[in-house]
Amino acid sequence: MSDLAALERALRDADGGRVSVTADDRARASTDRSGWVPASPPVAVVRARGVADVVATLRWASAHAVPVVPRGAGTGLAGGAVAGADAVVLDLSGLTRIVEIRADDLVAVVEPGVLTADLDRAAAVHGLRYAPDPASATISTIGGNIATNAGGLRCVKYGVTRDSVLGLDVVLADGTRTRTGRATVKGVAGYDLTSLFVGSEGTLGVIVGATLRLHPGPARTATAAAHFATVAAAAAAASAVTRAGARPAMLELLDAATLEALDAAGPPGGALLLAQADGPGADVEIDAIAAVLGRTATRLDVATDPRRADELVAVRRRALPAIERRGRVLIEDIAVPPSRLAETVTRIGELSARTGVPVFTFAHAGDGNLHPIVLTGQPFGDPGPVPADVTAVVDDIFRLALDLGGTITGEHGVGLLKRKWLAAELDAGAGELHRRIKAAFDPHSVLNPGKAL
Amino acid sequence: MSDLAALERALRDADGGRVSVTADDRARASTDRSGWVPASPPVAVVRARGVADVVATLRWASAHAVPVVPRGAGTGLAGGAVAGADAVVLDLSGLTRIVEIRADDLVAVVEPGVLTADLDRAAAVHGLRYAPDPASATISTIGGNIATNAGGLRCVKYGVTRDSVLGLDVVLADGTRTRTGRATVKGVAGYDLTSLFVGSEGTLGVIVGATLRLHPGPARTATAAAHFATVAAAAAAASAVTRAGARPAMLELLDAATLEALDAAGPPGGALLLAQADGPGADVEIDAIAAVLGRTATRLDVATDPRRADELVAVRRRALPAIERRGRVLIEDIAVPPSRLAETVTRIGELSARTGVPVFTFAHAGDGNLHPIVLTGQPFGDPGPVPADVTAVVDDIFRLALDLGGTITGEHGVGLLKRKWLAAELDAGAGELHRRIKAAFDPHSVLNPGKAL
Ligand SMILES: Cc1cc2nc3c(=O)[nH]c(=O)nc-3n(C[C@H](O)[C@H](O)[C@H](O)COP(=O)(O)OP(=O)(O)OC[C@H]3O[C@@H](n4cnc5c(N)ncnc54)[C@H](O)[C@@H]3O)c2cc1C
Ligand SMILES: Cc1cc2nc3c(=O)[nH]c(=O)nc-3n(C[C@H](O)[C@H](O)[C@H](O)COP(=O)(O)OP(=O)(O)OC[C@H]3O[C@@H](n4cnc5c(N)ncnc54)[C@H](O)[C@@H]3O)c2cc1C
Repeated sequence: MSDLAALERALRDADGGRVSVTADDRARASTDRSGWVPASPPVAVVRARGVADVVATLRWASAHAVPVVPRGAGTGLAGGAVAGADAVVLDLSGLTRIVEIRADDLVAVVEPGVLTADLDRAAAVHGLRYAPDPASATISTIGGNIATNAGGLRCVKYGVTRDSVLGLDVVLADGTRTRTGRATVKGVAGYDLTSLFVGSEGTLGVIVGATLRLHPGPARTATAAAHFATVAAAAAAASAVTRAGARPAMLELLDAATLEALDAAGPPGGALLLAQADGPGADVEIDAIAAVLGRTATRLDVATDPRRADELVAVRRRALPAIERRGRVLIEDIAVPPSRLAETVTRIGELSARTGVPVFTFAHAGDGNLHPIVLTGQPFGDPGPVPADVTAVVDDIFRLALDLGGTITGEHGVGLLKRKWLAAELDAGAGELHRRIKAAFDPHSVLNPGKAL
Repeated sequence: MSDLAALERALRDADGGRVSVTADDRARASTDRSGWVPASPPVAVVRARGVADVVATLRWASAHAVPVVPRGAGTGLAGGAVAGADAVVLDLSGLTRIVEIRADDLVAVVEPGVLTADLDRAAAVHGLRYAPDPASATISTIGGNIATNAGGLRCVKYGVTRDSVLGLDVVLADGTRTRTGRATVKGVAGYDLTSLFVGSEGTLGVIVGATLRLHPGPARTATAAAHFATVAAAAAAASAVTRAGARPAMLELLDAATLEALDAAGPPGGALLLAQADGPGADVEIDAIAAVLGRTATRLDVATDPRRADELVAVRRRALPAIERRGRVLIEDIAVPPSRLAETVTRIGELSARTGVPVFTFAHAGDGNLHPIVLTGQPFGDPGPVPADVTAVVDDIFRLALDLGGTITGEHGVGLLKRKWLAAELDAGAGELHRRIKAAFDPHSVLNPGKAL
């Protein structure tokens, strides 16, 4: 394709990025961890080696009207990085430089392909940490985290990815490079372009750099694990913890089905709540939390030594792998107002019982963000179409979230898979503003067309 | 003016809002607390009584190409609500309903004219609070706070106004009403329109309602006040507190000039640092903070009983009034990276000494946000033009902020007064994105034209 020859020339004059058209590379770059596979793979994969390659690729794509799908590590769960026949994939995973860590300013400047856990490790050398901790931290990129506004366990106290992004270095669809935000914690000069790019799933610009906020590593952590007879009791206890003025750094709920998958089940219908406090006052805070949990828990363990705490928390980290041992899963991601948490888990359990489709739910209870994990009945890794009864259950879960005043996605994004439901969540005016913003940033719809909108 | 007759009819059919053309009302609505007065007042002031009045006003304004200046309480310091000859002021201060407080969800739904302190008081009935606490909380509106993304003392721990806004109810320039965001803490469905409206100073839409996040009132607070021999020592101590992993709910610095204005001066060149911790672990946390401060402080007071704590903090609240007793002031609002705090205060002091223009600086030290208060040499309340040497000092302060990697406004906004400097802070690409967003939201430039951009 002569188009690609022009692109290759442009990259040679830029940072020397490579274009691959091998079947393997194209197949690998066609999908993400949503399991969604397009009918045919992208035409090519560009491996950027520097910002100039990104600029060159977008200029070329704009000139030739070729859709570009930005790609980090491809761990996304919403199909945001899925790329079909007419597209070129722009792979940012090779831009892995941690440009600087300014410890005194609690700031890191990074390239987009840095793995989340690598940044956290680099910060740790200075006694600092990067707070957002998606469960995929060892395999996902900062650029992907920013493009999806990823969450994690700690965000109940430290906020989601957006709250750690001070400024961005972005290349727009036409190849213009621009900076948003600043290196200070506060600032209101101009519109909040940074927040607009965060979570925009590669549809408004390609993130080529980020100025991120770091936090001091916690002086101490302390952990509590409480079992409850019912999900309702566990959810009520989670609310009570928050109402008591504690600011746990983690507040996770696991339902009975999940506990069973973990071979950690207590009596049927029970639930587990995990709470962690950190900071100089961690021990006092965990005592306050334990006092609240102890009122209704059937069992309560508190650990202030790190090893014992890790044991208590390990059960949460093992939840998804344990469920995946049973076959292919759909990882859902709804959020509801805190007061509706118990009702949501309970009704999902009823839905599962009624339909016979197994659903396991764990939740970032402090944020009202639930992950119902739906077994499709297919073997793990099966890329085939999901059975209709399973799709129906997933649709019911989305409807439930909206009915209870919630959202169809708390942290994974809309991507390709939830576009239908996005229309149900946004009103007409907001939908129209989305289209106008997209047109203002990317008039020829070069960037990740057909996603997130 | 027949235009206005049509507007009056439209309002009669809406919620019965009133149009005033009295000289008094127009003069009052022409300016804010920046002291900037336009050459001639606006043509009229619309006092909205409901959302339908806002819709009617914007439809009418769009049809007649009349600029509309949204107005809350007019306490802004950047001239954002200043309204000149061709404009109609849309006064939202009459929409004062707290629609609901859902204590279990930690959420409040309010109209834009609610005074910040009134919401906080209403939340307190449920043991909750509204975290953002601008010093103007008793006189400014939630709508104005959102439109400027107001900050305050507590935001070092609880974030700025943006961090407390979950969703908005907005009327666009053409009269379309739409909702952004959600009632959940987390959510990534669609672009972050909420953050885009926050801080947009009335240029993208009129905020007619907000879903706000509440926090539990603190179980305990504990306070420390530390004097230092130099600003550098105080700023270093503030950094050390943060680095030690403490999360103070307040961390304020007052320079020697400010202390002198308060008759609280120690030795010349000294500085005061105020720290407050809150939550169940407050006492432990203040001990950790005091241990850090004690290393270099020349004097240290710690208070865990509320009355004594209030006394320690009162000096901060009295700072601005004390300076204003000396005459007309310009309240500036720059932010710099934390490591540059000491240098910034010191260089502002040198600038003041060199020019003879008195400048008093206090700062939200934890956020690197400084308020240099510049005496103009005129009597308090003088609306006349500011002397050129004073303007030159203010320009030097902005230049200093940018030179040190900071911003020209941490929390007050750009408004009318800082537009020239905004261009110096944004790069060309970002400036262009601002213009495109403005055009996408308000193609005929009806909303607050000539502000914030
Ligand atoms: C085991 C597992 C656990 C997970 N746990 C969590 C979790 O706890 N919390 C959570 O939020 N998510 C989680 N995820 C989902 C996923 O890891 C996140 O969405 C992550 O942020 C994606 O990063 P990535 O680098 O893999 O991005 P990709 O999957 O490559 O891309 C995701 C989206 O971002 C866009 N994009 C990527 N890089 C850029 C860039 N530089 N500029 C512009 N756009 C870009 C893509 O076009 C796409 O739309 C998990 C996934 C797995 C497989
Ligand atoms: C003594 C004093 C202390 C202060 N302390 C602080 C402080 O600690 N922190 C801080 O951040 N600020 C502070 N301020 C500045 C000011 O109070 C804030 O900017 C406040 O948010 C303005 O609110 P307002 O209701 O007075 O808005 P206004 O001054 O009426 O308007 C401000 C801007 O918002 C727009 N606007 C107002 N309402 C709406 C609406 N409903 N929809 C769309 N646009 C709207 C206006 O067009 C204008 O651009 C202080 C001011 C004073 C006088």
